[in-house]
Amino acid sequence: MPSVAAATIQMTPYEVLKELSLFAGTAETTVDAFAKASQFQTVPKGTVLFLQDDESEWFYVLTAGWVKLFRETVDGNEAVIDMVTRGHIIGDTAVLEDGVHSFGAATVEETTFLRVPSSLLKATIKENHEIALAMLTSMSKLRTRQTREIESLTLQNASQRIGCFMLRLCQLSAVEPIHLTLPYDKSLIAARLGMKSETFSRALNKLRSETNITIKGANVEIPSIDILSHYVCSACSNEFPCSDLT
Amino acid sequence: MPSVAAATIQMTPYEVLKELSLFAGTAETTVDAFAKASQFQTVPKGTVLFLQDDESEWFYVLTAGWVKLFRETVDGNEAVIDMVTRGHIIGDTAVLEDGVHSFGAATVEETTFLRVPSSLLKATIKENHEIALAMLTSMSKLRTRQTREIESLTLQNASQRIGCFMLRLCQLSAVEPIHLTLPYDKSLIAARLGMKSETFSRALNKLRSETNITIKGANVEIPSIDILSHYVCSACSNEFPCSDLT
Repeated sequence: MPSVAAATIQMTPYEVLKELSLFAGTAETTVDAFAKASQFQTVPKGTVLFLQDDESEWFYVLTAGWVKLFRETVDGNEAVIDMVTRGHIIGDTAVLEDGVHSFGAATVEETTFLRVPSSLLKATIKENHEIALAMLTSMSKLRTRQTREIESLTLQNASQRIGCFMLRLCQLSAVEPIHLTLPYDKSLIAARLGMKSETFSRALNKLRSETNITIKGANVEIPSIDILSHYVCSACSNEFPCSDLT
Repeated sequence: MPSVAAATIQMTPYEVLKELSLFAGTAETTVDAFAKASQFQTVPKGTVLFLQDDESEWFYVLTAGWVKLFRETVDGNEAVIDMVTRGHIIGDTAVLEDGVHSFGAATVEETTFLRVPSSLLKATIKENHEIALAMLTSMSKLRTRQTREIESLTLQNASQRIGCFMLRLCQLSAVEPIHLTLPYDKSLIAARLGMKSETFSRALNKLRSETNITIKGANVEIPSIDILSHYVCSACSNEFPCSDLT
Protein backbone atom coordinates (compact mmCIF):
# COMPACT_ATOMS: atom_id res chain seq x y z
CA MET A 1 0.00 0.00 0.00
CA PRO A 2 2.35 2.75 -1.19
CA SER A 3 -0.14 5.54 -0.53
CA VAL A 4 -0.42 4.73 3.17
CA ALA A 5 3.36 4.35 3.45
CA ALA A 6 3.81 7.72 1.78
CA ALA A 7 1.34 9.34 4.16
CA THR A 8 3.22 7.81 7.08
CA ILE A 9 6.60 9.03 6.00
CA GLN A 10 5.34 12.59 6.17
CA MET A 11 4.57 12.13 9.88
CA THR A 12 7.31 12.57 12.47
CA PRO A 13 8.00 9.94 15.17
CA TYR A 14 6.54 12.42 17.67
CA GLU A 15 3.28 12.66 15.72
CA VAL A 16 2.95 8.89 15.40
CA LEU A 17 3.60 8.33 19.12
CA LYS A 18 1.32 11.17 20.22
CA GLU A 19 -1.64 9.42 18.54
CA LEU A 20 -1.23 6.26 20.63
CA SER A 21 -3.48 5.72 23.65
CA LEU A 22 -0.31 4.58 25.43
CA PHE A 23 0.78 8.23 25.52
CA ALA A 24 -2.60 9.79 26.22
CA GLY A 25 -2.22 12.33 29.00
CA THR A 26 1.57 12.02 28.97
CA ALA A 27 3.83 15.07 29.24
CA GLU A 28 5.27 16.32 25.93
CA THR A 29 8.82 15.87 27.20
CA THR A 30 8.18 12.16 27.82
CA VAL A 31 6.74 11.59 24.34
CA ASP A 32 9.65 13.55 22.94
CA ALA A 33 12.17 11.31 24.70
CA PHE A 34 10.54 8.29 23.03
CA ALA A 35 10.41 10.05 19.65
CA LYS A 36 14.12 10.90 19.80
CA ALA A 37 15.03 7.26 20.52
CA SER A 38 12.84 5.90 17.68
CA GLN A 39 13.44 5.25 13.98
CA PHE A 40 11.14 4.56 11.04
CA GLN A 41 11.90 1.42 9.06
CA THR A 42 10.32 -0.12 5.98
CA VAL A 43 10.95 -3.84 5.57
CA PRO A 44 9.90 -6.33 2.85
CA LYS A 45 7.33 -9.13 3.13
CA GLY A 46 8.54 -12.07 5.19
CA THR A 47 10.74 -10.10 7.60
CA VAL A 48 10.87 -11.61 11.08
CA LEU A 49 10.68 -8.80 13.65
CA PHE A 50 11.28 -11.19 16.54
CA LEU A 51 10.75 -14.82 17.49
CA GLN A 52 9.00 -16.36 20.48
CA ASP A 53 11.40 -16.45 23.49
CA ASP A 54 13.64 -13.77 21.96
CA GLU A 55 14.81 -11.12 24.35
CA SER A 56 12.92 -7.91 23.71
CA GLU A 57 15.09 -5.13 22.34
CA TRP A 58 12.46 -3.03 20.54
CA PHE A 59 8.76 -2.59 20.33
CA TYR A 60 7.06 -1.62 17.07
CA VAL A 61 4.38 0.91 16.23
CA LEU A 62 2.91 -0.12 12.86
CA THR A 63 2.14 2.63 10.37
CA ALA A 64 1.53 0.56 7.19
CA GLY A 65 1.33 -3.12 6.20
CA TRP A 66 0.23 -6.32 7.96
CA VAL A 67 2.14 -8.30 10.55
CA LYS A 68 1.42 -11.87 11.65
CA LEU A 69 1.80 -12.78 15.34
CA PHE A 70 2.42 -16.50 15.77
CA ARG A 71 3.56 -19.36 17.97
CA GLU A 72 5.32 -22.44 16.68
CA THR A 73 4.63 -25.96 17.92
CA VAL A 74 7.13 -28.68 18.73
CA ASP A 75 6.17 -30.57 15.55
CA GLY A 76 6.61 -27.47 13.38
CA ASN A 77 3.08 -26.15 12.92
CA GLU A 78 2.31 -22.49 13.34
CA ALA A 79 -0.61 -20.97 15.26
CA VAL A 80 -1.47 -17.49 14.00
CA ILE A 81 -2.45 -15.68 17.19
CA ASP A 82 -3.37 -12.40 15.54
CA MET A 83 -2.91 -10.25 12.42
CA VAL A 84 -2.27 -6.56 13.10
CA THR A 85 -1.81 -3.40 11.06
CA ARG A 86 -1.51 0.41 11.21
CA GLY A 87 -2.06 1.81 14.70
CA HIS A 88 -1.16 -1.40 16.56
CA ILE A 89 1.82 -1.75 18.87
CA ILE A 90 3.63 -5.07 18.96
CA GLY A 91 6.16 -6.40 21.42
CA ASP A 92 5.50 -3.76 24.07
CA THR A 93 4.11 -6.18 26.65
CA ALA A 94 7.35 -8.19 26.67
CA VAL A 95 8.73 -5.59 29.09
CA LEU A 96 6.20 -6.99 31.57
CA GLU A 97 7.07 -10.61 30.80
CA ASP A 98 10.69 -10.88 31.99
CA GLY A 99 11.74 -9.02 28.85
CA VAL A 100 10.99 -12.01 26.61
CA HIS A 101 8.52 -12.16 23.71
CA SER A 102 5.74 -14.71 24.24
CA PHE A 103 5.08 -14.94 20.47
CA GLY A 104 6.88 -14.27 17.19
CA ALA A 105 6.10 -11.51 14.67
CA ALA A 106 6.70 -11.49 10.89
CA THR A 107 5.54 -9.17 8.11
CA VAL A 108 3.19 -10.60 5.48
CA GLU A 109 3.67 -7.66 3.11
CA GLU A 110 5.93 -4.60 2.91
CA THR A 111 5.55 -2.96 6.29
CA THR A 112 6.53 0.38 7.80
CA PHE A 113 6.89 0.87 11.53
CA LEU A 114 8.44 3.03 14.16
CA ARG A 115 10.96 1.05 16.20
CA VAL A 116 11.27 2.10 19.85
CA PRO A 117 13.72 0.74 22.46
CA SER A 118 12.07 -1.57 25.02
CA SER A 119 14.50 -0.47 27.73
CA LEU A 120 13.10 3.08 27.57
CA LEU A 121 9.53 1.82 27.96
CA LYS A 122 10.54 -0.44 30.85
CA ALA A 123 12.28 2.40 32.68
CA THR A 124 9.45 4.85 32.02
CA ILE A 125 6.70 2.50 33.25
CA LYS A 126 8.59 2.08 36.51
CA GLU A 127 8.62 5.78 37.29
CA ASN A 128 5.73 7.29 35.30
CA HIS A 129 2.31 6.56 36.72
CA GLU A 130 0.37 7.92 33.68
CA ILE A 131 2.17 5.53 31.32
CA ALA A 132 1.56 2.61 33.68
CA LEU A 133 -2.16 3.44 33.75
CA ALA A 134 -2.34 3.87 29.97
CA MET A 135 -0.60 0.53 29.53
CA LEU A 136 -3.12 -1.08 31.91
CA THR A 137 -5.99 0.23 29.80
CA SER A 138 -4.39 -1.00 26.61
CA MET A 139 -3.68 -4.45 28.11
CA SER A 140 -7.25 -4.60 29.24
CA LYS A 141 -8.53 -3.95 25.70
CA LEU A 142 -6.20 -6.62 24.38
CA ARG A 143 -7.59 -9.00 26.94
CA THR A 144 -11.18 -8.32 25.86
CA ARG A 145 -10.11 -8.91 22.26
CA GLN A 146 -8.58 -12.26 23.24
CA THR A 147 -11.59 -13.27 25.32
CA ARG A 148 -13.80 -12.74 22.27
CA GLU A 149 -11.35 -14.71 20.16
CA ILE A 150 -11.66 -17.66 22.54
CA GLU A 151 -15.45 -17.32 22.48
CA SER A 152 -15.47 -17.27 18.69
CA LEU A 153 -13.20 -20.33 18.40
CA THR A 154 -15.44 -22.12 20.90
CA LEU A 155 -18.91 -21.30 19.59
CA GLN A 156 -18.88 -20.12 15.98
CA ASN A 157 -18.62 -22.64 13.18
CA ALA A 158 -16.04 -22.15 10.43
CA SER A 159 -18.47 -20.39 8.04
CA GLN A 160 -19.59 -18.01 10.78
CA ARG A 161 -15.97 -17.17 11.63
CA ILE A 162 -15.26 -16.27 7.99
CA GLY A 163 -18.47 -14.21 7.83
CA CYS A 164 -17.50 -12.43 11.06
CA PHE A 165 -14.10 -11.59 9.59
CA MET A 166 -15.84 -10.04 6.54
CA LEU A 167 -18.42 -8.12 8.58
CA ARG A 168 -15.59 -6.39 10.42
CA LEU A 169 -14.19 -5.13 7.13
CA CYS A 170 -17.50 -3.58 6.02
CA GLN A 171 -18.16 0.14 5.81
CA LEU A 172 -21.62 -0.02 7.31
CA SER A 173 -22.66 3.31 5.89
CA ALA A 174 -22.09 2.05 2.33
CA VAL A 175 -24.99 1.32 -0.03
CA GLU A 176 -25.71 -2.37 -0.69
CA PRO A 177 -24.36 -4.39 -2.35
CA ILE A 178 -21.23 -3.73 -0.28
CA HIS A 179 -17.87 -4.29 -1.94
CA LEU A 180 -14.77 -5.04 0.06
CA THR A 181 -11.24 -6.23 -0.54
CA LEU A 182 -9.73 -8.98 1.59
CA PRO A 183 -6.72 -7.45 3.36
CA TYR A 184 -4.34 -10.41 2.90
CA ASP A 185 -4.05 -13.89 1.33
CA LYS A 186 -6.84 -16.41 1.85
CA SER A 187 -4.31 -18.89 3.25
CA LEU A 188 -3.43 -16.33 5.94
CA ILE A 189 -7.09 -15.61 6.65
CA ALA A 190 -7.58 -19.37 7.13
CA ALA A 191 -4.61 -19.50 9.55
CA ARG A 192 -5.81 -16.38 11.36
CA LEU A 193 -9.20 -18.05 11.87
CA GLY A 194 -7.60 -21.30 13.05
CA MET A 195 -8.58 -23.42 10.02
CA LYS A 196 -6.79 -25.74 7.63
CA SER A 197 -7.16 -24.63 3.98
CA GLU A 198 -9.56 -27.51 3.13
CA THR A 199 -11.82 -26.49 6.02
CA PHE A 200 -11.61 -22.87 4.90
CA SER A 201 -12.66 -23.71 1.30
CA ARG A 202 -15.61 -25.85 2.43
CA ALA A 203 -16.70 -23.22 4.97
CA LEU A 204 -16.43 -20.43 2.41
CA ASN A 205 -18.66 -22.37 0.01
CA LYS A 206 -21.21 -22.86 2.75
CA LEU A 207 -21.08 -19.15 3.63
CA ARG A 208 -21.65 -18.29 -0.04
CA SER A 209 -24.77 -20.44 -0.30
CA GLU A 210 -26.16 -19.30 3.07
CA THR A 211 -25.68 -15.55 2.57
CA ASN A 212 -25.47 -15.01 -1.22
CA ILE A 213 -22.09 -13.29 -1.05
CA THR A 214 -19.81 -13.57 -4.09
CA ILE A 215 -16.02 -13.71 -4.06
CA LYS A 216 -13.61 -13.17 -6.95
CA GLY A 217 -9.97 -13.21 -5.91
CA ALA A 218 -9.69 -10.70 -3.10
CA ASN A 219 -12.96 -8.95 -4.00
CA VAL A 220 -16.08 -9.71 -2.01
CA GLU A 221 -19.61 -8.52 -2.77
CA ILE A 222 -22.14 -8.63 0.06
CA PRO A 223 -25.71 -8.13 -1.21
CA SER A 224 -27.27 -7.87 2.26
CA ILE A 225 -25.60 -7.03 5.57
CA ASP A 226 -28.78 -8.13 7.36
CA ILE A 227 -28.61 -11.66 5.95
CA LEU A 228 -24.88 -11.95 6.65
CA SER A 229 -25.05 -10.57 10.19
CA HIS A 230 -28.09 -12.72 11.00
CA TYR A 231 -26.16 -15.82 9.93
CA VAL A 232 -22.93 -14.84 11.74
CA CYS A 233 -23.93 -13.04 14.91
CA SER A 234 -26.50 -15.47 16.32
CA ALA A 235 -23.58 -17.56 17.63
CA CYS A 236 -21.89 -14.61 19.36
CA SER A 237 -22.40 -12.74 22.60
CA ASN A 238 -22.17 -9.36 20.85
CA GLU A 239 -24.94 -7.92 18.81
CA PHE A 240 -24.03 -6.54 15.42
CA PRO A 241 -22.31 -4.10 14.86
CA CYS A 242 -19.50 -4.72 17.37
CA SER A 243 -17.51 -1.74 16.18
CA ASP A 244 -15.47 -1.56 19.41
CA LEU A 245 -13.36 -4.46 18.20
CA THR A 246 -10.86 -3.54 15.53
CA MET B 1 -13.97 -29.56 49.53
CA PRO B 2 -14.69 -28.95 53.24
CA SER B 3 -11.05 -29.30 54.31
CA VAL B 4 -9.89 -26.46 52.06
CA ALA B 5 -12.82 -24.29 53.14
CA ALA B 6 -11.97 -24.98 56.77
CA ALA B 7 -8.33 -24.05 56.20
CA THR B 8 -9.46 -20.84 54.53
CA ILE B 9 -11.74 -19.77 57.30
CA GLN B 10 -8.80 -19.79 59.68
CA MET B 11 -7.05 -17.18 57.53
CA THR B 12 -7.86 -13.51 57.95
CA PRO B 13 -8.74 -11.26 54.98
CA TYR B 14 -5.35 -9.59 55.47
CA GLU B 15 -3.53 -12.93 55.15
CA VAL B 16 -5.44 -13.91 52.01
CA LEU B 17 -4.79 -10.54 50.34
CA LYS B 18 -1.13 -10.42 51.37
CA GLU B 19 -0.51 -13.67 49.42
CA LEU B 20 -1.71 -12.15 46.13
CA SER B 21 0.85 -10.91 43.61
CA LEU B 22 -1.44 -7.88 43.23
CA PHE B 23 -0.26 -6.72 46.65
CA ALA B 24 3.39 -7.73 46.34
CA GLY B 25 5.56 -4.84 47.49
CA THR B 26 2.53 -2.90 48.74
CA ALA B 27 2.60 -1.04 52.07
CA GLU B 28 0.92 -2.85 54.97
CA THR B 29 -1.48 0.03 55.50
CA THR B 30 -2.76 -0.30 51.92
CA VAL B 31 -3.34 -4.05 52.24
CA ASP B 32 -4.99 -3.38 55.58
CA ALA B 33 -7.41 -0.88 54.01
CA PHE B 34 -8.47 -3.56 51.51
CA ALA B 35 -8.73 -6.20 54.27
CA LYS B 36 -11.01 -3.99 56.37
CA ALA B 37 -13.34 -3.41 53.42
CA SER B 38 -13.55 -7.14 52.55
CA GLN B 39 -15.79 -9.98 53.70
CA PHE B 40 -15.59 -13.76 53.38
CA GLN B 41 -18.62 -15.43 51.84
CA THR B 42 -19.47 -19.07 51.15
CA VAL B 43 -22.10 -19.61 48.46
CA PRO B 44 -23.71 -22.75 47.05
CA LYS B 45 -23.21 -24.30 43.61
CA GLY B 46 -24.89 -22.34 40.82
CA THR B 47 -24.54 -18.89 42.38
CA VAL B 48 -24.09 -16.12 39.82
CA LEU B 49 -21.44 -13.70 41.06
CA PHE B 50 -22.05 -11.31 38.18
CA LEU B 51 -23.24 -11.29 34.59
CA GLN B 52 -21.61 -9.96 31.44
CA ASP B 53 -22.26 -6.19 31.13
CA ASP B 54 -23.09 -5.88 34.85
CA GLU B 55 -21.60 -2.89 36.56
CA SER B 56 -18.70 -4.00 38.73
CA GLU B 57 -19.38 -3.60 42.44
CA TRP B 58 -16.97 -6.19 43.84
CA PHE B 59 -14.04 -8.30 42.84
CA TYR B 60 -13.54 -11.78 44.25
CA VAL B 61 -10.49 -13.57 45.63
CA LEU B 62 -11.26 -17.30 45.51
CA THR B 63 -10.19 -19.39 48.47
CA ALA B 64 -12.08 -22.66 47.76
CA GLY B 65 -14.31 -24.12 45.02
CA TRP B 66 -14.51 -23.69 41.25
CA VAL B 67 -16.01 -20.78 39.33
CA LYS B 68 -16.96 -20.75 35.66
CA LEU B 69 -16.30 -17.60 33.59
CA PHE B 70 -18.59 -17.40 30.59
CA ARG B 71 -20.12 -15.36 27.79
CA GLU B 72 -23.59 -15.93 26.42
CA THR B 73 -24.46 -15.73 22.74
CA VAL B 74 -27.48 -14.07 21.15
CA ASP B 75 -29.03 -17.50 20.43
CA GLY B 76 -28.54 -18.67 24.02
CA ASN B 77 -25.37 -20.75 23.91
CA GLU B 78 -22.67 -20.32 26.49
CA ALA B 79 -18.93 -20.08 25.86
CA VAL B 80 -16.93 -21.11 28.92
CA ILE B 81 -13.95 -18.74 28.78
CA ASP B 82 -12.15 -20.15 31.80
CA MET B 83 -12.55 -22.21 34.99
CA VAL B 84 -10.77 -20.79 38.03
CA THR B 85 -10.23 -21.80 41.65
CA ARG B 86 -8.32 -20.98 44.87
CA GLY B 87 -5.79 -18.17 44.44
CA HIS B 88 -7.46 -16.60 41.40
CA ILE B 89 -8.98 -13.12 41.38
CA ILE B 90 -12.08 -12.52 39.29
CA GLY B 91 -13.73 -9.30 38.22
CA ASP B 92 -10.77 -7.07 39.11
CA THR B 93 -10.04 -6.02 35.55
CA ALA B 94 -13.54 -4.54 35.15
CA VAL B 95 -12.23 -1.43 36.89
CA LEU B 96 -10.12 -0.91 33.76
CA GLU B 97 -13.02 -1.60 31.39
CA ASP B 98 -15.41 1.28 32.11
CA GLY B 99 -16.41 -0.51 35.32
CA VAL B 100 -18.34 -3.18 33.43
CA HIS B 101 -17.70 -6.95 33.47
CA SER B 102 -16.79 -8.34 30.06
CA PHE B 103 -17.90 -11.87 31.07
CA GLY B 104 -20.16 -13.55 33.63
CA ALA B 105 -19.08 -15.69 36.61
CA ALA B 106 -21.00 -18.50 38.34
CA THR B 107 -19.96 -21.11 40.91
CA VAL B 108 -20.01 -24.76 39.83
CA GLU B 109 -19.70 -26.07 43.40
CA GLU B 110 -19.81 -24.62 46.92
CA THR B 111 -17.32 -21.76 46.80
CA THR B 112 -15.66 -19.51 49.37
CA PHE B 113 -14.23 -16.14 48.44
CA LEU B 114 -13.19 -12.82 49.82
CA ARG B 115 -15.36 -10.04 48.36
CA VAL B 116 -13.57 -6.70 47.91
CA PRO B 117 -15.12 -3.40 46.73
CA SER B 118 -14.14 -2.48 43.15
CA SER B 119 -14.31 1.23 43.96
CA LEU B 120 -11.42 0.86 46.42
CA LEU B 121 -9.28 -0.90 43.81
CA LYS B 122 -10.13 1.71 41.20
CA ALA B 123 -9.19 4.58 43.52
CA THR B 124 -6.00 2.86 44.70
CA ILE B 125 -4.74 2.08 41.18
CA LYS B 126 -5.12 5.76 40.29
CA GLU B 127 -2.84 6.94 43.07
CA ASN B 128 -0.64 3.96 43.97
CA HIS B 129 2.09 3.20 41.46
CA GLU B 130 3.09 -0.16 43.04
CA ILE B 131 -0.47 -1.51 42.69
CA ALA B 132 -0.67 -0.29 39.08
CA LEU B 133 2.59 -2.11 38.29
CA ALA B 134 1.47 -5.29 40.06
CA MET B 135 -1.78 -5.20 38.14
CA LEU B 136 0.15 -4.79 34.89
CA THR B 137 2.18 -7.90 35.68
CA SER B 138 -0.92 -9.88 36.53
CA MET B 139 -2.72 -8.73 33.34
CA SER B 140 0.31 -9.73 31.38
CA LYS B 141 0.24 -13.28 32.81
CA LEU B 142 -3.44 -13.49 32.02
CA ARG B 143 -2.69 -12.44 28.49
CA THR B 144 -0.08 -15.18 28.07
CA ARG B 145 -2.59 -17.68 29.42
CA GLN B 146 -5.15 -16.52 26.85
CA THR B 147 -2.63 -16.56 24.01
CA ARG B 148 -1.91 -20.21 24.78
CA GLU B 149 -5.61 -20.93 24.95
CA ILE B 150 -6.05 -19.51 21.44
CA GLU B 151 -3.07 -21.55 20.25
CA SER B 152 -4.51 -24.71 21.75
CA LEU B 153 -7.96 -24.14 20.22
CA THR B 154 -6.28 -23.51 16.88
CA LEU B 155 -3.78 -26.36 16.69
CA GLN B 156 -4.59 -29.19 19.09
CA ASN B 157 -7.25 -31.71 18.17
CA ALA B 158 -9.99 -32.53 20.67
CA SER B 159 -8.18 -35.61 22.11
CA GLN B 160 -4.99 -33.61 22.59
CA ARG B 161 -6.89 -30.85 24.39
CA ILE B 162 -8.37 -33.37 26.83
CA GLY B 163 -4.94 -34.96 27.32
CA CYS B 164 -3.41 -31.52 27.94
CA PHE B 165 -6.08 -30.80 30.55
CA MET B 166 -5.15 -34.07 32.34
CA LEU B 167 -1.39 -33.51 32.12
CA ARG B 168 -1.82 -30.24 33.97
CA LEU B 169 -3.49 -32.06 36.85
CA CYS B 170 -0.64 -34.57 37.26
CA GLN B 171 1.79 -34.62 40.16
CA LEU B 172 4.86 -35.25 38.09
CA SER B 173 6.88 -36.56 41.00
CA ALA B 174 4.37 -39.38 41.55
CA VAL B 175 5.20 -43.00 40.70
CA GLU B 176 3.47 -44.40 37.61
CA PRO B 177 0.71 -45.32 37.10
CA ILE B 178 -0.42 -41.83 38.10
CA HIS B 179 -3.89 -41.47 39.62
CA LEU B 180 -5.79 -38.24 39.43
CA THR B 181 -9.30 -36.97 40.08
CA LEU B 182 -11.06 -34.76 37.57
CA PRO B 183 -11.78 -31.45 39.36
CA TYR B 184 -15.32 -30.95 38.00
CA ASP B 185 -18.03 -32.56 35.85
CA LYS B 186 -17.12 -33.97 32.45
CA SER B 187 -19.79 -31.77 30.84
CA LEU B 188 -18.01 -28.71 32.26
CA ILE B 189 -14.61 -29.99 31.12
CA ALA B 190 -16.08 -30.36 27.62
CA ALA B 191 -17.42 -26.79 27.75
CA ARG B 192 -14.12 -25.50 29.15
CA LEU B 193 -12.29 -27.11 26.23
CA GLY B 194 -14.78 -25.72 23.70
CA MET B 195 -16.41 -29.05 22.74
CA LYS B 196 -19.94 -30.40 22.44
CA SER B 197 -20.48 -33.48 24.64
CA GLU B 198 -20.59 -35.85 21.63
CA THR B 199 -17.22 -34.53 20.45
CA PHE B 200 -15.86 -34.87 23.98
CA SER B 201 -16.96 -38.52 24.26
CA ARG B 202 -15.48 -39.47 20.89
CA ALA B 203 -12.24 -37.60 21.64
CA LEU B 204 -11.94 -39.21 25.08
CA ASN B 205 -12.28 -42.68 23.51
CA LYS B 206 -9.56 -41.83 21.02
CA LEU B 207 -7.32 -40.52 23.82
CA ARG B 208 -7.89 -43.78 25.74
CA SER B 209 -6.83 -45.95 22.82
CA GLU B 210 -3.85 -43.74 21.89
CA THR B 211 -2.38 -43.41 25.39
CA ASN B 212 -3.73 -46.39 27.41
CA ILE B 213 -5.25 -44.20 30.11
CA THR B 214 -8.30 -45.53 31.96
CA ILE B 215 -11.17 -43.49 33.35
CA LYS B 216 -13.82 -44.53 35.88
CA GLY B 217 -16.16 -41.70 36.88
CA ALA B 218 -13.88 -38.87 37.98
CA ASN B 219 -10.85 -41.14 38.48
CA VAL B 220 -8.16 -41.28 35.85
CA GLU B 221 -5.19 -43.67 35.73
CA ILE B 222 -2.25 -42.69 33.53
CA PRO B 223 0.17 -45.60 33.00
CA SER B 224 2.84 -43.51 31.26
CA ILE B 225 3.34 -39.73 31.35
CA ASP B 226 5.81 -40.10 28.48
CA ILE B 227 3.23 -41.65 26.17
CA LEU B 228 0.58 -39.10 27.13
CA SER B 229 2.86 -36.07 26.82
CA HIS B 230 4.28 -37.32 23.53
CA TYR B 231 0.74 -37.56 22.13
CA VAL B 232 -0.41 -34.19 23.52
CA CYS B 233 2.56 -31.84 23.39
CA SER B 234 3.72 -32.37 19.81
CA ALA B 235 0.95 -29.99 18.71
CA CYS B 236 1.94 -27.26 21.15
CA SER B 237 4.62 -24.58 21.26
CA ASN B 238 5.58 -25.46 24.85
CA GLU B 239 7.60 -28.48 25.74
CA PHE B 240 6.35 -30.64 28.57
CA PRO B 241 6.16 -29.83 31.50
CA CYS B 242 4.70 -26.33 31.12
CA SER B 243 4.33 -25.86 34.85
CA ASP B 244 4.16 -22.08 34.57
CA LEU B 245 0.56 -22.34 33.44
CA THR B 246 -1.88 -23.09 36.24
